[in-house]
Amino acid sequence: MGDEMANLSGDNSKILLDESEMPTQWYNIIPDLPEPPPPPLHPGTHEPIGPDDLAPLFPMGLIMQEVSTDSYIDIPGEVLDIYRLWRPSPLIRARRLEKALDTPAHIYLKYEGVSPAGSHKPNTSVPQAYYNQVEGVKKLTTETGAGQWGSALAFACAQFDMECEVWQVAASFEQKPYRKAMMEVWGATVHPSPSDLTEAGRAILAQDPNSPGSLGIAISEAVEMALQADTTRYALGSVLNHVLLHQTIIGEEALLQFAKVDEMPDVLVGCTGGGSNFGGLSFPFLREKLAGNIDPTIRCVEPAACPSLTQGEYRYDFGDTAGMTPLMKMHTLGHSFIPDPIHAGGLRYHGMSPLVSHIYELGLVEAEAIGQTECFASGLQFARTEGIVPAPEPTHAIAAAIREANAAKEAGEERVILTALCGHGHLDLKAYEGYIAGQISDYDHPADKIAAAMESVPVL
Amino acid sequence: MGDEMANLSGDNSKILLDESEMPTQWYNIIPDLPEPPPPPLHPGTHEPIGPDDLAPLFPMGLIMQEVSTDSYIDIPGEVLDIYRLWRPSPLIRARRLEKALDTPAHIYLKYEGVSPAGSHKPNTSVPQAYYNQVEGVKKLTTETGAGQWGSALAFACAQFDMECEVWQVAASFEQKPYRKAMMEVWGATVHPSPSDLTEAGRAILAQDPNSPGSLGIAISEAVEMALQADTTRYALGSVLNHVLLHQTIIGEEALLQFAKVDEMPDVLVGCTGGGSNFGGLSFPFLREKLAGNIDPTIRCVEPAACPSLTQGEYRYDFGDTAGMTPLMKMHTLGHSFIPDPIHAGGLRYHGMSPLVSHIYELGLVEAEAIGQTECFASGLQFARTEGIVPAPEPTHAIAAAIREANAAKEAGEERVILTALCGHGHLDLKAYEGYIAGQISDYDHPADKIAAAMESVPVL
Repeated sequence: MGDEMANLSGDNSKILLDESEMPTQWYNIIPDLPEPPPPPLHPGTHEPIGPDDLAPLFPMGLIMQEVSTDSYIDIPGEVLDIYRLWRPSPLIRARRLEKALDTPAHIYLKYEGVSPAGSHKPNTSVPQAYYNQVEGVKKLTTETGAGQWGSALAFACAQFDMECEVWQVAASFEQKPYRKAMMEVWGATVHPSPSDLTEAGRAILAQDPNSPGSLGIAISEAVEMALQADTTRYALGSVLNHVLLHQTIIGEEALLQFAKVDEMPDVLVGCTGGGSNFGGLSFPFLREKLAGNIDPTIRCVEPAACPSLTQGEYRYDFGDTAGMTPLMKMHTLGHSFIPDPIHAGGLRYHGMSPLVSHIYELGLVEAEAIGQTECFASGLQFARTEGIVPAPEPTHAIAAAIREANAAKEAGEERVILTALCGHGHLDLKAYEGYIAGQISDYDHPADKIAAAMESVPVL
Repeated sequence: MGDEMANLSGDNSKILLDESEMPTQWYNIIPDLPEPPPPPLHPGTHEPIGPDDLAPLFPMGLIMQEVSTDSYIDIPGEVLDIYRLWRPSPLIRARRLEKALDTPAHIYLKYEGVSPAGSHKPNTSVPQAYYNQVEGVKKLTTETGAGQWGSALAFACAQFDMECEVWQVAASFEQKPYRKAMMEVWGATVHPSPSDLTEAGRAILAQDPNSPGSLGIAISEAVEMALQADTTRYALGSVLNHVLLHQTIIGEEALLQFAKVDEMPDVLVGCTGGGSNFGGLSFPFLREKLAGNIDPTIRCVEPAACPSLTQGEYRYDFGDTAGMTPLMKMHTLGHSFIPDPIHAGGLRYHGMSPLVSHIYELGLVEAEAIGQTECFASGLQFARTEGIVPAPEPTHAIAAAIREANAAKEAGEERVILTALCGHGHLDLKAYEGYIAGQISDYDHPADKIAAAMESVPVL
């Protein structure tokens, strides 16, 4: 081992940027697309909605970003100051994993686990809290799947002295008790969802008192509560345009980091739940691809148990289970779809970001679905070679990267692979314990469940 | 808030080093001290021990470091390659905490939570595994208190394809189940201590079947097992000279980082359990102080429930509970002392590193003890301002830093404070939940327990 290892010396494992190099604008991909995404529709009238329709839920600062046609939007100074607590995030060259795989591929990971909440989510929770606070909002409500988003919003609210109330999907509330504690450390209040605090929650509990919950149900609860007070608004951790916009700082930094090592990715793979981590990493690269500067393959990776892109339909559907949100044209499994309780709670969402769905329909990105046992095996191999224990969500991205690295070996190609390691798995260790003990399996192909849930999609 | 926050812009929150700037030597403070520390003694003969006496427990590479009189020791290339996965670690300027405290002090923290195991411990677990592997050792045994050291050794063994068996103090095994899972992710086997696998464990269980355990007991168990096989050795996560030596990379990096911002600490505070985090940060600064280049106050901070420096005696005592280790001259509460189950499990040790004890006796460093409720309050304030949730151990250091910052405010002085944020608290969140729920209190002053335990100290 000695001589081989010594060869690694002299080459950085991490490509870092100084705080002074941190991008100061978010990138809005919409003006650069060959056609704009279809508009959201009012749930009652089925007419396109305007900014005013969203005002009960979101502050105008975010609504204007949601519908913006500007290519770049300045990041406010206060947001930059908070970003600096952990950004720029490192780009990691996974040399020890490459060695273990004996692959000629170069595997890079943009690591967002360095944030206080341990994922990419604070990139948007901080500006969301900021724009709300500027408009006098005192409290934010939200849902959380794996707990990553709820933690991130709790952290952001602590920075702006705002209240934060979180509905955590019941399956995750059970699996990840430390997430609740983390949210409380930052001052938030946390409820398991479905709860008896809302009409939406009570309706689900009446049907199934042991419901494992879903992101769709938790969204209904948080939205319902936000509508009950003038100084309360709702915050969404993924799916919407402004959320993906905030996340583009990931890809902008990664472009600067690749320039430093004089490489560019041939393949970019990112895990997709609501699409914010994937969009954040990939959109700046897609801009360069659309401009003809680079030509990477860009691919979404979703869980086999919740395959909205690969098995869902591209239709107008609700973002939540109770049908309270606007109708959005997106890849959906049906808003009544309740995914099996896989450990990647952040990917258990029936729909896909309308913007990512649109870009997929345009043929600009690919998609594949991977089962959770292959993902955990990949996560474990990563932890044992590179040290970092990945969250269950990015193990999907790592599994896809390892597939690519093996294909490169097969082909004898020096392929450059980029993926997003969007969070650490410190609060998901029980899932790994279960995997090691052989207690985790892939769920059956969810075709029947999907067919049933698709009947809940409105016919326009 | 707006205008005040904007003033933070333009000043880095993190002082980073490139991997190319990482120190390539460890610093041995012993030759620079006015007199050498007293030698360890054989537990039977009470004569000074030589390298051969330690050979059943440690590889010769580490034993020679333990007794070295060289000022600098080269870090092997393979160890540097693994360090590069997370090092150099950031030096954080806690601007938002300073603002919350309204203090003129500058508060810097050297943050070791970026390592895979989440603490400073891999700085020594990696070279310890390396030197053992070079000499053909196949398996390492160890104890762990908070679980930080066990995790660190599990990670290191995974890097060198070695087996790892860990005895985790029972109180911590109960409080921190995720630590066991983390060790298993890296391939280790974990037992609660006292266990029925060893004579030492069985003896304790016979007296108290519900013993919460202690580091001293767990050390006895791990040492006993290491002595039973030729290719098995024992690894210690603190206390010994070679461990403190490996940790000096922390202070060496911090010196380079302070040079970048053209400041130097007026006060350095670090938490002490076995002394490795404190020694690692402070020894390079102490070298500069002894050379007359700087003049900081250097202070150990220990838990009020386990006050080895402030209330223990400086005497020869055993490092473990069963009396199997050499006798070391150190500040001790008596090797039979079992500390109350405070959450800072890594600080629950009856003794203090002989080297730190010696330096304290020489009057080169100070010490204070702080109760755990003040520490948790300080940790919570830190988390809500700076984002990072600290482990319970460094909340002692943060509490001391906040005391200093408040004193600076009182005095109207621009004091520069440095402390070690030696680990994150992601796996300690249940402790914070308990604190927030008002379920954590300081334990009574342990004078009676100390007096009783001091009777276990041998009279030479």
